[in-house]
Amino acid sequence: MSSVDVKARKNAMRVLKERFKTIIEQIQRGEKPTLIMPKRVLSNTIYDEKSKMLLLGPDVLKRSFIDVNEARKFMQTLLMASIIYEALVNNEYPTIRDLFYRGKHSISYRDVDGKLIHENTWDEQKESDSVIRDLEVFMNVLREEMLILSKEKGKVVGNLVIKSGDDVIDLSKMGHGAYSIEPTPDLLEFRDVDAEYVLVVEKDAVFQQLHRYGFWRKYKAILVTSAGQPDRATRRFVRRLNEELKLPVYVLTDSDPYGFYIYSVFKIGSITLSYESERLATPNARFIGVSMTDVFGDGVFQKILNNVRELGGFTKSALGRLKKKKPYLSESERKNYVIKAKQRDIERAVELVGYDVAEKCIESSEVRSKLKKKEGLTGYPWFRTPEWIRELCIFFNTLNKLEIEAMASKGLKFLADTYIPEKIEGNDWID
Amino acid sequence: MSSVDVKARKNAMRVLKERFKTIIEQIQRGEKPTLIMPKRVLSNTIYDEKSKMLLLGPDVLKRSFIDVNEARKFMQTLLMASIIYEALVNNEYPTIRDLFYRGKHSISYRDVDGKLIHENTWDEQKESDSVIRDLEVFMNVLREEMLILSKEKGKVVGNLVIKSGDDVIDLSKMGHGAYSIEPTPDLLEFRDVDAEYVLVVEKDAVFQQLHRYGFWRKYKAILVTSAGQPDRATRRFVRRLNEELKLPVYVLTDSDPYGFYIYSVFKIGSITLSYESERLATPNARFIGVSMTDVFGDGVFQKILNNVRELGGFTKSALGRLKKKKPYLSESERKNYVIKAKQRDIERAVELVGYDVAEKCIESSEVRSKLKKKEGLTGYPWFRTPEWIRELCIFFNTLNKLEIEAMASKGLKFLADTYIPEKIEGNDWID
Repeated sequence: MSSVDVKARKNAMRVLKERFKTIIEQIQRGEKPTLIMPKRVLSNTIYDEKSKMLLLGPDVLKRSFIDVNEARKFMQTLLMASIIYEALVNNEYPTIRDLFYRGKHSISYRDVDGKLIHENTWDEQKESDSVIRDLEVFMNVLREEMLILSKEKGKVVGNLVIKSGDDVIDLSKMGHGAYSIEPTPDLLEFRDVDAEYVLVVEKDAVFQQLHRYGFWRKYKAILVTSAGQPDRATRRFVRRLNEELKLPVYVLTDSDPYGFYIYSVFKIGSITLSYESERLATPNARFIGVSMTDVFGDGVFQKILNNVRELGGFTKSALGRLKKKKPYLSESERKNYVIKAKQRDIERAVELVGYDVAEKCIESSEVRSKLKKKEGLTGYPWFRTPEWIRELCIFFNTLNKLEIEAMASKGLKFLADTYIPEKIEGNDWID
Repeated sequence: MSSVDVKARKNAMRVLKERFKTIIEQIQRGEKPTLIMPKRVLSNTIYDEKSKMLLLGPDVLKRSFIDVNEARKFMQTLLMASIIYEALVNNEYPTIRDLFYRGKHSISYRDVDGKLIHENTWDEQKESDSVIRDLEVFMNVLREEMLILSKEKGKVVGNLVIKSGDDVIDLSKMGHGAYSIEPTPDLLEFRDVDAEYVLVVEKDAVFQQLHRYGFWRKYKAILVTSAGQPDRATRRFVRRLNEELKLPVYVLTDSDPYGFYIYSVFKIGSITLSYESERLATPNARFIGVSMTDVFGDGVFQKILNNVRELGGFTKSALGRLKKKKPYLSESERKNYVIKAKQRDIERAVELVGYDVAEKCIESSEVRSKLKKKEGLTGYPWFRTPEWIRELCIFFNTLNKLEIEAMASKGLKFLADTYIPEKIEGNDWID
């Protein structure tokens, strides 16, 4: 075991002990054992405009042992805490999956009528995962800091030397392969860096292409891929590159609502796990593309603008002041490269920007009639900006999307030496 | 670009030129341009008992330009070859996805009646992928050797020094992270090794646990994960470890028909891509578990044996001679850890071992009635051995499965220091 892990283990044990001491003290004082922790619910999730992060609000919940409605959850919380503590003591590295197994068993007791009752501690991993999240907010510690591991997809190459475990690793010497980020990125140290920015690529295959082309060497970039939806470790790693090494972070995804959402997860965090955002999100991450305006220019949007007075709280003139944009693709390239959007792309787009914007900016009454009006489709505040409204309006009216690979098929040179550098140098990204 | 890539590029260009020269020669001789290549169809896929590999049989197909039925395919093949050649000349690293985009366009021509016809070179990636496969068998070259890249999930750590590109990389110095295998593993060199075997773990999270525990250091293992279904690069990498470094390969998967199938892909290859097996499969890979007998022992199987005279061509006495097996799990552990099999698990199991074996070994008439009899469910020859028949009979009669994580939750020590070493040292694996 690395000396880094030994230290992390001791620290996690100390925090666990300290936080649960209150239960013992309550019992000794003859009080009802009760846990008080922040409420992890949507209504207590707040988008903080200033820090540009999703944060937990002030609401707390009480979980008491002497309450029929709460006893089960109380028991689960203590059971999980004790399993994690035991794993720490025994030099284990559990995963959330095996924590589920470790705690899963049947408890037998007699009810008031003397009838024998069997009850499972938990039946599905959903339940035990939720308890782990409760512990994270209760102790203000990420599960990774308790040496709970998970599968990890993120990779990195670039002029960066790190210390991980007891090894010093030069990430510019990975050959044609790459360095697979550790599942506990808070435990690694940045030793030396010679880079100007971080480029995060959604797709592993495009990462492979840019890596092999020598992109990161030529442009002094740290090249990262999340290989799809980013996991926690990749997000934390990117955040640390930004925060500690002061490197700007640019995110490159497919041009579709899913790509936009991946950018949003890096930047803001995911709604369901807002409590992690404070540590995992990179609020000043920038979206360099592929944007809808890169594909179509802004002509489609100008047409809509003539029909609407305002969109998402912005007046027509405010939206009209957006910088003009020319497409990177010719008419015939567009014809060969774009893909028709699916119903779930449309739904995801409505989720991002809000039903009201979608409804107003869609020209075709046929498409508009297909929108599903649901409660709460108010859009995410960080997507209700002029730039993003333009992007999504173009999407709604073309119902097309484009993969990064299509840009690469204009020539890897085009992607690496024209598209990406031009976008970055020209400040042609969306915040 | 690494010197390794420069060399690979030249070689691929040479082979492409040579193979397609015949077309020019045919035209010069006034013959019909025709491509002759091995048939990539199931009926021409042969399981070679001696080499234990799926190989293409002797059937060939002719693809002629002057034939209405073949002209389209002929055109596609030449189009793809020319795009790949161009990418090689231009120092590109295409992916199969962007090769699809590069070739996708509309061809316009007038038919015999003078009517203008528009026809797409291809509409879906399925089509262009199939053409790439044709080129692989036509030229007897893997696409990776033509510097066609892809996403890559495989990871490795251990006492192994490799040269990849122009870098020498010590895979025992990866800290808590890992080395992400390159998508072109034929281009890497093994420089130095100090290991006794290769352990391939299906699940990335379990790989992380064993890595962190120091398993590979303690047991002198090269630790690899395929992170689910293995991709081509991981399979080729494992094969090279086995073939060139003479290291035995052990595969550790979940105890379910999907896990068994993952082992089979490493060992034999996938049915649809049999032509790659010669290069990608590791015919002497061994399945160390988790086996059904590790979970349940062989009691369930003994019970069935009393009712059947033979299964899959083996007599009762031949099957009865299998070594007795005790389970690694107690009754109560089993109760907490096993998961109910789903309908698709059952279907996959029938696919592996054949309908006849499934029907005969299932005791419950209710379960038997749920089996879907389909044409061609004759099972894979390499699963119709006494050991595998026992495994699958236990599955069919318990309809339970078990994840590796359940073994880890008995303690990572148990998995790392008892289960795996015992299975390997006791030769308790299935061939």
